[in-house]
Amino acid sequence: MQAKMSAPPALKNDRLIRALLRQPVDQTPIWIMRQAGRYLPEYRAVREQAGDFMTLCSTPDLACEVTLQPLRRFGLDAAILFSDILTIPDAMGLGLYFAEGEGPKFKTRLESAADIAKLRAPDPEDDLGYVMDAVRLIRQELKGEVPLIGFAGSPWTLATYMIEGGGSKTFARAKALLFEDPTAAHHLMHVLADSVAAYLNAQIEAGAQAVMVFDSWGGALSSAHYKEYSLAAMQRIVDQLIREKDGVKIPVTLFTKGGGLWLEAIAATGCDAVGLDWTIEIAEARRRIGNKVALQGNMDPAVMAASSSTVCHEAERILNSFGHGNGHVFNLGHGITPDIDPDKVDALVRQVHQHSRQFHD
Amino acid sequence: MQAKMSAPPALKNDRLIRALLRQPVDQTPIWIMRQAGRYLPEYRAVREQAGDFMTLCSTPDLACEVTLQPLRRFGLDAAILFSDILTIPDAMGLGLYFAEGEGPKFKTRLESAADIAKLRAPDPEDDLGYVMDAVRLIRQELKGEVPLIGFAGSPWTLATYMIEGGGSKTFARAKALLFEDPTAAHHLMHVLADSVAAYLNAQIEAGAQAVMVFDSWGGALSSAHYKEYSLAAMQRIVDQLIREKDGVKIPVTLFTKGGGLWLEAIAATGCDAVGLDWTIEIAEARRRIGNKVALQGNMDPAVMAASSSTVCHEAERILNSFGHGNGHVFNLGHGITPDIDPDKVDALVRQVHQHSRQFHD
Repeated sequence: MQAKMSAPPALKNDRLIRALLRQPVDQTPIWIMRQAGRYLPEYRAVREQAGDFMTLCSTPDLACEVTLQPLRRFGLDAAILFSDILTIPDAMGLGLYFAEGEGPKFKTRLESAADIAKLRAPDPEDDLGYVMDAVRLIRQELKGEVPLIGFAGSPWTLATYMIEGGGSKTFARAKALLFEDPTAAHHLMHVLADSVAAYLNAQIEAGAQAVMVFDSWGGALSSAHYKEYSLAAMQRIVDQLIREKDGVKIPVTLFTKGGGLWLEAIAATGCDAVGLDWTIEIAEARRRIGNKVALQGNMDPAVMAASSSTVCHEAERILNSFGHGNGHVFNLGHGITPDIDPDKVDALVRQVHQHSRQFHD
Repeated sequence: MQAKMSAPPALKNDRLIRALLRQPVDQTPIWIMRQAGRYLPEYRAVREQAGDFMTLCSTPDLACEVTLQPLRRFGLDAAILFSDILTIPDAMGLGLYFAEGEGPKFKTRLESAADIAKLRAPDPEDDLGYVMDAVRLIRQELKGEVPLIGFAGSPWTLATYMIEGGGSKTFARAKALLFEDPTAAHHLMHVLADSVAAYLNAQIEAGAQAVMVFDSWGGALSSAHYKEYSLAAMQRIVDQLIREKDGVKIPVTLFTKGGGLWLEAIAATGCDAVGLDWTIEIAEARRRIGNKVALQGNMDPAVMAASSSTVCHEAERILNSFGHGNGHVFNLGHGITPDIDPDKVDALVRQVHQHSRQFHD
C-alpha cells in the first residue's frame, strides 16, 4: 500500500487526543457515534452504489469516502473508521451478512463447546486486510486534520451475536453458556479478547490514533457476570494494547451501554476514557471516576429529533453538568439515528464548541 | 358482587407483607413476575379457551382462574392479579389490542397536545369494573392463603405506549414530547398519575393487600428526565395511595427496570419496597437503600433456562448477597419467559425457602 510508505502528517486538531488524556483544550471536542451514517444523503448514495453493507465495509475506497463525509460538513474533532463491530467473527468464518431491514446475522452460529474450541484469532493483516487498508487510506486522506479513531466490538458483545446467530432481546442462548459452561465461556472470552487486542493493535500500526471498544450488550448482564466475563475480557484487551507509538500516546476508551452501575470497575481497567450512555448524569459520573479517566458522552440520541434550539439547550445542560476542567469528549450516548436532519448536527457541533469555551482556561 | 359482602378471611401466610414492611419472617418470601403465564400448560389452555388476551383479562372468572394456577403448583408466597399494565389507557378510549406475535397496540395514539388535554382519569368501578370484580373474586377464592398483589403500569410507561401507539425501541415520539412540549408532558403525567392512584386505591378497596407500580421503560430516560417525569409521577401516586386499611398496612412497591442508578431517589418517594432488575448486585442495593425500604428481586430470568441446579445455585448466590435480616422479597428481575419448564419454578421456590432460613432468626 502506498499509504504505508508516506510519513503521516502532524495532527492539526489534537483536541480529542488531549481531552481523552485529560489534558487542557481550548474547547470541548465532539464527535458522534455513527457520524458516518444513513442520516447523510451522501452516505446513502455511496451505500446504494456499494450494493450491500458488507461491500461498503470491505472496500477501502468506499469506507474511506463515507468516513470523511461528515468531516466535510461539520467541524467534528475526530474521524472514526467506517466499519462494523462484527468483522472479527466474520473473519473467524461465521459468515456475516445483513438482511434488508433486519440487523446483522451469521450464516453459522456457535452451537457447542466444540465450536468454541475450534475458533482461532484472525490475523489482522491477512484476514482483515481490508480494514487495515481502509485505516491507512483514511489516515492519508485526513492529512492530519483530525485524529482517526479505530474500534472493535467487545468480546461479550461479539459473543452474543456469534451464539445467537444475530441480534437478540433476551440473549437466552448466550447467557445460557455463561451459566451452564463457564469453562467454554471463559475460553470464548479469551479468544475474542486476544483477537480484539491484535485487531486494534493492527489498526494502531496502520494509523489509528485512538481506539474504542464498544460493549453494546454488557448492560444486559448481572453485575457478577458483567465483571466476570465482559469486563474481564476488556481488561485483557487493555493489558495488551499499544498505548504509545512514536512517542505519541494512543488513548483507549471503553464504552458499555447500560454500564452506569459499574463505572468504577471500568475505570479501574486502566483505560484512558469511559463512554457514557445518557442514563447517568455526567456530573455524577465525573464525581465517581473523573479523577481517573476522561468521560465521553452523553446526550440522548432522541434529542436529535427535537428542534435545533432544544438540541443546543440539551448540549449546554450536559456541558454545564460536566463543568470546568479537562477530560470531556462530547458525544451522543448511542449512535445517531437515520431520521435526523444533518443541519441539527451542525448546530450541535457549533454549540458544543462555543458554549464549552467558558469551561476551559 | 357477593364477594363484596363476605368478610375477608385472615391471612394465613403473611410473609410477603411482613418482608415488604421489613418485619421479621421465618424464610424469605418469593413470587415471580408473570407467574401466571404462558410457561404453564394450564394457562395456555385457558388462554385458548378465552380466544384472545383481552377477553382473558376482562373476564373475572378467567382472570381469577389463571391467577390461582401457579399457586396450585408452587409454594409461592403471593398471588398477583392477572391483568395488563395498559388497562388504564384502554379505559381512556385508546383501544388496546394484541396482534398475534406482536406486543400490545392501540387503535388510537396521542398525536397532539390537544389529544392529551382531552384525556380524563377513568372511574375505576365504572370503567374498569372487570378488574375490580376480578380482584374481589380472586381475594375470595384465595381464602386467605396468601396475599393478593394489585398493580398498574407507571405513568411514563403508559405514556410511551399511548404516544408510540405500541411498543418502541427508541421511544422517539414519546421522548420528543418531553423535549418539545414539557407543559403537555407534565399534564399527561399528572392525568396518568391520578388515574393510576385511583385505580390502585380501588384495587385496595376491592381486596388487594399490596400494590406495585411497573415502570418498564423509565430506564430509557436520561437521569434528569427520569426524575422530572417518571419518578415525579410515581411520587404523585405514592402520595395518594391508601397505605392502611382496617388497621392493616398496604405496602407499595416501585419497580423501574434499569433504574439501578436512581435507587436513592426511588426510595425517597416513601414507598415501602423497591423492585430491582438483575443488573445490580443486591448487596450493593441493600447498602445504598436497605435502611429505608425493602428490596424485591433480582434474579436474571435467563437463569431459568439453565438446569435446576444452576437455578438453585444462582438463587443461593442472591440470598447470600442480601444476607442476614429483614426486607427481602425474592423475585426475578423481570417476567418469566414462556419457554421455561415449570419444574424449575418449583425447584426455585423450594430452594429460596430452604436456603433463606439461615438468614432469619
